[in-house]
Amino acid sequence: MTASTGNHAVPPGSHDFAAVFAMLKPHMAALDVFMHAQLSAFEPEIRAMADYCIDTSGKRIRPALVFTSGWRGEVISPDLVRIAGVVELVHLASLVHDDIMDEAEVRRSRRTATREYGATAAVLLGDALFSHALNLATQFPTTEVCQEVSDSMRKVCAGEIIQTLRRGSTNISRADYDRIIDLKTAELFRVSCHLGGRFSGYSPEYVAAAGKFGRHLGIAYQIYDDLADFFGDEKRIGKTLGTDLASGKITLPLLALADRLPEVEQAGLIEEITGRRPPQPVLRIQQMNTLGVFAVVEAAVEQELRAAEAALASHGELPPVPLLLRLCEVLRHQVAGLRKGDDR
Amino acid sequence: MTASTGNHAVPPGSHDFAAVFAMLKPHMAALDVFMHAQLSAFEPEIRAMADYCIDTSGKRIRPALVFTSGWRGEVISPDLVRIAGVVELVHLASLVHDDIMDEAEVRRSRRTATREYGATAAVLLGDALFSHALNLATQFPTTEVCQEVSDSMRKVCAGEIIQTLRRGSTNISRADYDRIIDLKTAELFRVSCHLGGRFSGYSPEYVAAAGKFGRHLGIAYQIYDDLADFFGDEKRIGKTLGTDLASGKITLPLLALADRLPEVEQAGLIEEITGRRPPQPVLRIQQMNTLGVFAVVEAAVEQELRAAEAALASHGELPPVPLLLRLCEVLRHQVAGLRKGDDR
Repeated sequence: MTASTGNHAVPPGSHDFAAVFAMLKPHMAALDVFMHAQLSAFEPEIRAMADYCIDTSGKRIRPALVFTSGWRGEVISPDLVRIAGVVELVHLASLVHDDIMDEAEVRRSRRTATREYGATAAVLLGDALFSHALNLATQFPTTEVCQEVSDSMRKVCAGEIIQTLRRGSTNISRADYDRIIDLKTAELFRVSCHLGGRFSGYSPEYVAAAGKFGRHLGIAYQIYDDLADFFGDEKRIGKTLGTDLASGKITLPLLALADRLPEVEQAGLIEEITGRRPPQPVLRIQQMNTLGVFAVVEAAVEQELRAAEAALASHGELPPVPLLLRLCEVLRHQVAGLRKGDDR
Repeated sequence: MTASTGNHAVPPGSHDFAAVFAMLKPHMAALDVFMHAQLSAFEPEIRAMADYCIDTSGKRIRPALVFTSGWRGEVISPDLVRIAGVVELVHLASLVHDDIMDEAEVRRSRRTATREYGATAAVLLGDALFSHALNLATQFPTTEVCQEVSDSMRKVCAGEIIQTLRRGSTNISRADYDRIIDLKTAELFRVSCHLGGRFSGYSPEYVAAAGKFGRHLGIAYQIYDDLADFFGDEKRIGKTLGTDLASGKITLPLLALADRLPEVEQAGLIEEITGRRPPQPVLRIQQMNTLGVFAVVEAAVEQELRAAEAALASHGELPPVPLLLRLCEVLRHQVAGLRKGDDR
């Protein structure tokens, strides 16, 4: 497998999403111009607030998926830039609302919108960003983009609601976890890949395959993210380890730990999750190490990455495919890096 | 002026929106069926929550405007039912978010969604309702409905944000107030009338006129609502009088009072608005009575109602027009009723 596409070779030793996306630099620059041009669509009084949210420090993973799955070389398609803008706006709006709920003070080393403008304004600001994303989605000849994106938005919200309602509850199965991350994360990954392929004029077969790829990559990515909450580098991920445990959010590492803990020790973990006893992240990470939780979670990521790769198996000749496959490779190495402590 | 349309005569003595809308009973029944059919579009886990929000106790003013401005007699157009559903869902979603911000416990004699499910879930539930509204808007052959509605949604949010940011500030002019209510209320009234006329196949001239009518009616309605906060019947409007003063929200009655208070007494009012002194609604209502505030606000409503009526002047022969004009008459009487205490 090679990610080389003529002049846009990906550095073979790199295990960073950003490096894979290096060839997208002009596309991302076009996206930035596009995003900032959107500010004029907001009422003057809220423009500065919208600007604050459309910052450029994000990872822009979803736009990168749009551009990558619709890759046709250097050409920058205005349609793809607009789609990338739509999915990123939806994502940014959901972050604004997430931060209200988590009472988060800081995201990406700056104050959250809710901290900056108050929760009340942040609820409405997120709404305004959502509205504008869907308004942009209507700037296509048919209702297709708007339909896909509004459907995804509802699923993302539903996933978050289900997760929220389950906080502090220990009655969560692996199937529940799978469903939550499928809705809250994988869906927007899916729609990004689907629309990227679709609006680059690729065949319906490839478009469906790209969507499937995006979904499995999204699931893998969320599991990785949940693993990093226990095994990541605090400085690098920019938050304290074990926050999911502290907030009563059951993720795959915790599910796997609960499965493996001797029965006599389970009550203690349950009390931490339900908030009846202070969380002990250091102890729990130690136990995860002892009981082989990392390998279990890594295997779950691997399963999704293989499903993502398999989805593209019969489209290997298309320009986007080597790039998309490279993303799986990168994520695989990022997970392995957590185990080795490379990430620290 | 008569509101009679064959068998659907409006009781001439009635001064209640509901009575004007009596001929819309089958339309509203169709809307209820439609709204409940939407529940299946939500993920099973959040269906009960969505159902809770789609209650039938609301006034359904916006759907009524859709049906009225698109009136062609008894026929119930599926397009209009869907549009009515879209605007009502947007409105209900905005109420869910409003109630979070206001920390409201009760709306329409039942617990708010935020009280029932928690603020976190309510933020996301509002988002899911918004998303589904726009998804429904894509079920038309063109992007027109989605475009109009998403644009309106952003304006409604912008109006609410501006109002929120100004809470407790006394630096608000009449122009600021006009702009806030134009965005937060009149815009969705406008789009309801516009789309109602548009999807009943009326001429572009009438559609534009209906939109203009809706906008002015919306402004008049919001001023009436703000007046009722000081002069209404606590039992009937279902909340304590003077809540706007208590929350530092400057509305037209307060603006008019501030204008008329002797300079030496203004500092006290400012301290109440900015929260540095407990609000004294009873005193302020007394002063409003003494200083002729009611007449000033009533004149402002009247100006908007005349503008609404004027917008329809050259379309008097069309079936919807007598009904729309009747709405102005009803609102006029509702305002007069506040003065007389008829409303109590």
